[in-house]
Amino acid sequence: MRLILLSGGAGKRLWPLSNNNRPKQFLPVLQHGNKRESMLQRVWRQLEEAGLTEGAIFSTSGNQKELITSQLATDIEVVEEPERRDTFPAIALAAAHLYSQGEDRNEIVAVMPVDGYADKSFIELLPHLATVLEHSNSDIVLIGVKPDQPSEKFGYIVPGQSIISDISYQEVECFAEKPDLIKAENLIKKGALWNCGVFAFRLGYIIEFLRKKGLPYHYHQLRDMYSEVPKSSFDVEVVEKTNKKAVIAYNGTWKDLGTWDSLTEAMDTNVIGKGYLCRHSKDSHIINELDLPVSVWKVPNVIVVSGPDGILVTDRNEATGIKSMVHQVEILPRYEERLWGKQTILMHKKNAEGIETVTKRIIISAGRGISYQEHFLRKEVWTIVSGSGEVCINGEISLISAGDTIVVEAGTRHAIRAGSSNLEIIEVQIGKEIGEMDTIRFTHDWDYIPLSY
Amino acid sequence: MRLILLSGGAGKRLWPLSNNNRPKQFLPVLQHGNKRESMLQRVWRQLEEAGLTEGAIFSTSGNQKELITSQLATDIEVVEEPERRDTFPAIALAAAHLYSQGEDRNEIVAVMPVDGYADKSFIELLPHLATVLEHSNSDIVLIGVKPDQPSEKFGYIVPGQSIISDISYQEVECFAEKPDLIKAENLIKKGALWNCGVFAFRLGYIIEFLRKKGLPYHYHQLRDMYSEVPKSSFDVEVVEKTNKKAVIAYNGTWKDLGTWDSLTEAMDTNVIGKGYLCRHSKDSHIINELDLPVSVWKVPNVIVVSGPDGILVTDRNEATGIKSMVHQVEILPRYEERLWGKQTILMHKKNAEGIETVTKRIIISAGRGISYQEHFLRKEVWTIVSGSGEVCINGEISLISAGDTIVVEAGTRHAIRAGSSNLEIIEVQIGKEIGEMDTIRFTHDWDYIPLSY
Repeated sequence: MRLILLSGGAGKRLWPLSNNNRPKQFLPVLQHGNKRESMLQRVWRQLEEAGLTEGAIFSTSGNQKELITSQLATDIEVVEEPERRDTFPAIALAAAHLYSQGEDRNEIVAVMPVDGYADKSFIELLPHLATVLEHSNSDIVLIGVKPDQPSEKFGYIVPGQSIISDISYQEVECFAEKPDLIKAENLIKKGALWNCGVFAFRLGYIIEFLRKKGLPYHYHQLRDMYSEVPKSSFDVEVVEKTNKKAVIAYNGTWKDLGTWDSLTEAMDTNVIGKGYLCRHSKDSHIINELDLPVSVWKVPNVIVVSGPDGILVTDRNEATGIKSMVHQVEILPRYEERLWGKQTILMHKKNAEGIETVTKRIIISAGRGISYQEHFLRKEVWTIVSGSGEVCINGEISLISAGDTIVVEAGTRHAIRAGSSNLEIIEVQIGKEIGEMDTIRFTHDWDYIPLSY
Repeated sequence: MRLILLSGGAGKRLWPLSNNNRPKQFLPVLQHGNKRESMLQRVWRQLEEAGLTEGAIFSTSGNQKELITSQLATDIEVVEEPERRDTFPAIALAAAHLYSQGEDRNEIVAVMPVDGYADKSFIELLPHLATVLEHSNSDIVLIGVKPDQPSEKFGYIVPGQSIISDISYQEVECFAEKPDLIKAENLIKKGALWNCGVFAFRLGYIIEFLRKKGLPYHYHQLRDMYSEVPKSSFDVEVVEKTNKKAVIAYNGTWKDLGTWDSLTEAMDTNVIGKGYLCRHSKDSHIINELDLPVSVWKVPNVIVVSGPDGILVTDRNEATGIKSMVHQVEILPRYEERLWGKQTILMHKKNAEGIETVTKRIIISAGRGISYQEHFLRKEVWTIVSGSGEVCINGEISLISAGDTIVVEAGTRHAIRAGSSNLEIIEVQIGKEIGEMDTIRFTHDWDYIPLSY
């Protein structure tokens, strides 16, 4: 069985920690033993523990490859959408990728989003998708979650006849869109299950679906005309139109951690980062990624989140609504994770003459480097805070270590690489039009820097 | 009439904006026209408008001279306590200062704390203290505030017989310490007034008081034995022991802006700094000195305060209590106002080898400079962000302007001065034992730097 892991979203509901540079599944807010991990890292760990990572590939919206490989491992296979569309195009592209790699049409492919939060027993159901697909002779088999409340946030799968075999399952009668409370209660009485977006099919089924729809099923062809693939969900485009469907019921913990209230429910501490919560601040949470202490004094039932992009104070029960507010707040992403490490903007100012100054804290991971580049309109001043490594300035390589200062004048080609430990730098950029527009990258990889340029 | 303005306190109740480097009266949170001003600046402006600043001196606890002169004017007379004690020693020292300067024993001296918030009409009562002192033949005349509620936060002045003259006043029968609610209601029925710490006496009265107590009344002598002066309030030590006292009633706005709830009441906006308050966050306030947006979503009746020292979320009605919490929060003052300008620590880190890095944003006021100094264990990297000026490195002076970088190696003597506009710098300090211990100051004033050392 192959596994397509869907990693999408911008996560405006988890502002200020998530932004376009860091969707929600990458936030390190879950606890595992003494360590914190992101939703992505949790799901991947659970899959590894169940022996299911081999043959898994990621299908992502936007430029998430660096984030995924930096949080998991560098050799992970990632299929990136050329532009952000929806789950139907994203799954189709990943399926076409598998097919073009030579995968058999009979191979079973399971799909799972990485931003769910479930127990080990949920992960252990994944291989059962294949068993039931064979036994039921279905085109698609889903996992449905037994609701613990009449939620209005999820779509429902209404089951039909129950089949008792080695693994029990039910036929699918129909789907119900996100209902209101009364409809949800009625659905639950009928035994309906939450649709958590986890399902399996044979590779050939989706390939045939693309062919019949007149869409290419070879990876590069599909990729080239990606902007013309219908922007719709896989549920609407495929699942709901398929006649032969079955569902396996899962009776255990499953949560969509898409809002601060659901995310804090899954945290096993009330304070992450530097924070103080007085005992009269019952059911409040602090999630603090800043280097400053956050104190909550006698305010129960709030969630306080602080990070380089901003500070949020929200009522716990209203946290779902912040998406509508985020548009009105200045959004200037200040934190970014990259393949080479991570960076935080400490200050960004523009003076009256239009000269900008950006002060950054940069951590380059051990052995990684920032690509060889040049800026015409800004100079950069690097002060090495800890670690050691090498810099290349106009083709000349020199060793650097804590305490060194490197002044990179405008018009100078430069690159920097960490040695065997992380390299921490304070960078002050000063000039005009600071950003990607004034950046020329010569090669992506340090190793290609000519020793004498 | 001479005026002694008392400026004391550490202002833990206004954490995180106030700290030992910046007591509450220096916070720029009040609005005046289009500008923001501190309590100190407001009181001084009101005194100037009433023509009362001539002959005014400050009596301060701790090292506030730089703060006062930088917020008001450089030629202001400040008497600093050698160590922080209480209002009796502080007023006695200022009185001895006046006496030693040759002031007449018959001169009337009024005392006023700078952290009160009152209308113009309150300030206009100050000259009446002198009139009533003469007319009543009292030793001390106070201003009492007509209570608008039975507050438990203030001491009360219980008046006796009323005297009708050009300026009406009452004799003082007795004082009542901060009462409970029921006592406060009874006091108000008797016509009692709040004691706001504003009063006047003849200079000779306090000089004679010191003499009788066996304390020196010459400034330098009193200063030299300051640690032995009773650590008590002027109210307890002097006012309450004086028989001939009168009080002038003030019937208007007067507030003690010592807590976030009282301070926000005096603000005429709900958001200071970058902030977003949704319309369901009724009676909430944001006071934000950080460069990040703060959003409050559907949380009424809270005060959110953020600054370089930390972030506070407090219930409005419980804000008085935060003092007890501040001990439990990491206190590392990050913002400092100095005579030469101001600085904010953007980041402070120590690596595993004990090497510290402090990244600061420094603004040197136009025409001012930082004294000539040297550090043995740290280097400093200055990147000029805006403005221009001069640096002196080992006696050599050079011009600097936006975009320049100056690397000050450990063991180098250095000073920097702003030109005709403010000079903004990002400074990265890196080394061991960063702080005053590793700083040698050669002269306080740039003008004494020898041109060739």
